[in-house]
Amino acid sequence: MSLMFNGIGVSRGTAIGQAYLLRRNQIDVASRTLQKDTIPAEVRRFKRAVKMARAQLLTARDNIPKDAPSDVSSFLETHILMLDDAVLSQRPVEIIKTEMINAEAALQQQREELIKVFGSMDDSYLATRIDDVNHVIDSVLRALDGGTEHVLGSEQWKGQIIVADDLTPADTVTMQHHGVAGFVTETGGQLSHTAILARSLGIPAIVGVPNIRRYIKTGEVITLDGRLGMVLAEPTEEMLTDFRRQQKDNRLRLRELAKLLDTEAITTDGVKIRLSANIEIEEDLKALKRVNADGVGLYRTEFLYMNRETVPSEQDHFKVYTKVVRALKGAPLTIRTADLGADKQATGQLASRTRPQAHNPAMGLRGIRLCLSDTSLFIPQLRAILRASARGPIKMLLPMLTTVAEIKQCLKLVEQVKQSLREENIEFDEKMPIGGMIEVPAAAIEAERFAKHLDFLSIGTNDLIQYTLAIDRIDDQVDYLYDPLHPAVLTLIKMTIDAGLKSGIPVAMCGEMAGDARFVRLLLGLGLTEFSMPPNLILETKRNLITCRRATLKKQVSTMLAAHTCEERQVLLDKINASAPEN
Amino acid sequence: MSLMFNGIGVSRGTAIGQAYLLRRNQIDVASRTLQKDTIPAEVRRFKRAVKMARAQLLTARDNIPKDAPSDVSSFLETHILMLDDAVLSQRPVEIIKTEMINAEAALQQQREELIKVFGSMDDSYLATRIDDVNHVIDSVLRALDGGTEHVLGSEQWKGQIIVADDLTPADTVTMQHHGVAGFVTETGGQLSHTAILARSLGIPAIVGVPNIRRYIKTGEVITLDGRLGMVLAEPTEEMLTDFRRQQKDNRLRLRELAKLLDTEAITTDGVKIRLSANIEIEEDLKALKRVNADGVGLYRTEFLYMNRETVPSEQDHFKVYTKVVRALKGAPLTIRTADLGADKQATGQLASRTRPQAHNPAMGLRGIRLCLSDTSLFIPQLRAILRASARGPIKMLLPMLTTVAEIKQCLKLVEQVKQSLREENIEFDEKMPIGGMIEVPAAAIEAERFAKHLDFLSIGTNDLIQYTLAIDRIDDQVDYLYDPLHPAVLTLIKMTIDAGLKSGIPVAMCGEMAGDARFVRLLLGLGLTEFSMPPNLILETKRNLITCRRATLKKQVSTMLAAHTCEERQVLLDKINASAPEN
Repeated sequence: MSLMFNGIGVSRGTAIGQAYLLRRNQIDVASRTLQKDTIPAEVRRFKRAVKMARAQLLTARDNIPKDAPSDVSSFLETHILMLDDAVLSQRPVEIIKTEMINAEAALQQQREELIKVFGSMDDSYLATRIDDVNHVIDSVLRALDGGTEHVLGSEQWKGQIIVADDLTPADTVTMQHHGVAGFVTETGGQLSHTAILARSLGIPAIVGVPNIRRYIKTGEVITLDGRLGMVLAEPTEEMLTDFRRQQKDNRLRLRELAKLLDTEAITTDGVKIRLSANIEIEEDLKALKRVNADGVGLYRTEFLYMNRETVPSEQDHFKVYTKVVRALKGAPLTIRTADLGADKQATGQLASRTRPQAHNPAMGLRGIRLCLSDTSLFIPQLRAILRASARGPIKMLLPMLTTVAEIKQCLKLVEQVKQSLREENIEFDEKMPIGGMIEVPAAAIEAERFAKHLDFLSIGTNDLIQYTLAIDRIDDQVDYLYDPLHPAVLTLIKMTIDAGLKSGIPVAMCGEMAGDARFVRLLLGLGLTEFSMPPNLILETKRNLITCRRATLKKQVSTMLAAHTCEERQVLLDKINASAPEN
Repeated sequence: MSLMFNGIGVSRGTAIGQAYLLRRNQIDVASRTLQKDTIPAEVRRFKRAVKMARAQLLTARDNIPKDAPSDVSSFLETHILMLDDAVLSQRPVEIIKTEMINAEAALQQQREELIKVFGSMDDSYLATRIDDVNHVIDSVLRALDGGTEHVLGSEQWKGQIIVADDLTPADTVTMQHHGVAGFVTETGGQLSHTAILARSLGIPAIVGVPNIRRYIKTGEVITLDGRLGMVLAEPTEEMLTDFRRQQKDNRLRLRELAKLLDTEAITTDGVKIRLSANIEIEEDLKALKRVNADGVGLYRTEFLYMNRETVPSEQDHFKVYTKVVRALKGAPLTIRTADLGADKQATGQLASRTRPQAHNPAMGLRGIRLCLSDTSLFIPQLRAILRASARGPIKMLLPMLTTVAEIKQCLKLVEQVKQSLREENIEFDEKMPIGGMIEVPAAAIEAERFAKHLDFLSIGTNDLIQYTLAIDRIDDQVDYLYDPLHPAVLTLIKMTIDAGLKSGIPVAMCGEMAGDARFVRLLLGLGLTEFSMPPNLILETKRNLITCRRATLKKQVSTMLAAHTCEERQVLLDKINASAPEN
């Protein structure tokens, strides 16, 4: 009998393949008392296992695809650092020696100790840290167990669909490297580490399918649809045919989209739309070229501060920026100054500065606040951006602005930097546009005042929604309240777009909402004409928007905004999207 | 020579007294190797010290004045729990035994170990925990040192001004108990634990006066002005006379204010103003009566969930509410349903539920979100509030509303509770008004839609400012950005007041801004006529407002809102406040 499982589709794409069940909860950690003369051997065994776990983590890190975002490697770096810490590498050795017990039991004891230490501190942030501790300790335990699963697994995994309770960042990277077709986990949510990594690495994935391992067996053929969050076990021949047809349709869809490459992005009533790309690392430029994007609407520079010991120098910045701006061959490049802090943490020397002792880091020292509090951090980036502006059309974008005073402070700093460049006879674009992110509610409400001092605005919906609704979007206890359609959110977006129109400066959007097929028509109806999104969404968005009449959308959207209940608003939105090409 | 020191005045009031310097950074933690036969004695010595430190913490806890807010005891409870944990009570014993070193060195070693464990985890929230660990370990070290300072100190402290590097929550409570006249610390900020406690306990206090202990000596007379944040050392006779005159003036001012007790709160152009009290525990009722408040605008009920093992029953709620409503003798009582979560944590069984593993608890499962996620927690409170509404005029206030859907859910629950009360023939006020807190930006923007479902609104400025500006106000790295005058904040307040006017329902304000002399006229000019604040601020606010002409203020405020820069706005605000009675 065929079985259907529903989970949370966290990474698009489909897969058909044999299931490979990981059963890692069953590591034997029973305690055995050692004879005194066997202790040195047990210590060696433990050290070998740590070495092996370490090697696996390093291999995983080295196998990270070049085009993966930097968070992929930062997860792994954290685990490597933990493994190197005496708490995990030394303390168990002591326990083996003093308690004369086997390595597994010593590790288990130390795990309990660490959990107790954390637990006794009543810290609200510790659970994710305990997860990390567990991931690292489990990897050593698996290595003690011969590490068979991973070593064998790596050969067998190609084309298979991994089914597990949960996966570590290292697992996920290793899997991608070994060509798994997809994975399904019993735990996890839309925004768990595993989900983020799967999306980054382009592995079709579904999480949150409780108990699935009870119902399917290794070797059985299953199908996976990462968009719908659907797993099918023991499919009939008919189902498989159907699934393959869908896969084929999807490939066709992509081929169809490719035809739009040179189509101008313009509505049926002649409104020109800019579709730019969000990029993070150089490699994203390839994807950008494949879809013929209108330049870069958001170039994130946090990666420059990660996975390194020292603070990046002006030259480090400059080298990367000139490389990117040259590759763009005249298409505009919008560089966002470092938005460090909160969930984007630097490493090395900077770590202590960007990891403030905050109860609520999302509302702490981050983005422009951090840069203004430490201009020795900010000025090298400003200088590099200005210098690169001589090599191609660059705009500068300031993140996390809350007050006009911050804008003035930034502009003053830029003026000082320009002055010193002039004195040093270094070229730069005297008219390089400077824009501001609108992602704090205060900034949206004050957008008109902000616009007086800036050359463009860019709406960051992820944070704007988070603060407007007072919802931490990566907190799965409240993410049900995270709603881009909340009328207050739409009001703030509209206020920002209107402020731009009134002040005669462009307004773009670079948050996730801008590339979401459910919202792009709504946004166009609100007056938005500049969208910036991950490259792979650009053609789909173009196809969606070029069939629209903006004047009609404006009317429809204004009716929608006036609706009294969210049910009515949803009905009206469905109507707006009704004629959209299927996505 | 007289010396003047400036710091951050964190708790109003003045004091003259002999300085008493606490020098606690100099505890000797040098390591000594023990002879094997002295180990048992050292272990006993350590255990005695832990016992003594524990006794001191328990004494401090028992000395908490009845009218202190619940956070006072929760700080201490945390420290007691830490001290009881094996990590601090057992592990050092092991270290003494295995390493054969003295207790101080063992504790120091364990401190380093703990800090390393935390440090290696790169956790942004840990620093405050490390502070707690240090507080607790220091208390044991002081006890090992004979605990002389505390034991002797307690006798000597009466009427003295304590000067310290920093103070623990236990210190602060103990000091209040022993009748210190005030305190000054070298570290700390407006919103540090010590500052909050000092305000709660009514001790005049100044924090953030670096190095002051280098310049003054124990026994020397100093003066302290907690409002201005000023310490005067070696004052001349003249200065002392002057200071005493100021103290006298202040007493006179309070006596003057008392004359306003029966004066109607009405502006010169006849606008009636409601001045209600924020209360938390029964004892606040006394203060409320002393100032003749117009009932209670905010009755916080979180204290019912704290310092207990079990979740409060319907009867627990009911008993307290009826006592309070009776004491008010017909004045209205606004009960806010439990606003647990974030910085207001429950204890006992509930702790795990209200301490979610959140990175940003302020944007997590709190207030109405928590209550709606667990109606077994919410319904007993709803039943108790409704039952109490038969005994006097009660309104119910819902905290942390973000969506209309939440309001509807609450109203449906209330209707269900009413129905079951009817079936049980239990009396309640069928028309008990139900209001909503406006403290999330989305709620302010949507206030008009909210107003359609509610009987009144109440603006919670503390959280509203925090979310609107994306500033955690207890994060001293960013609290410089916390600004009630940010135009976006004023816009949201105005939107809420206007929504109430338009919908014909009352709008009150119960956040700190409502009792702040710098803002009350501005608020009146924005249209606010219902203010709720700590009882001790009511008469001062009355004196401030009864001299105003509302029509004039409205014009002045609208000019102020239109001003382009914050400097202009400040000038206009100063003008608005210029004729205000000195505060």
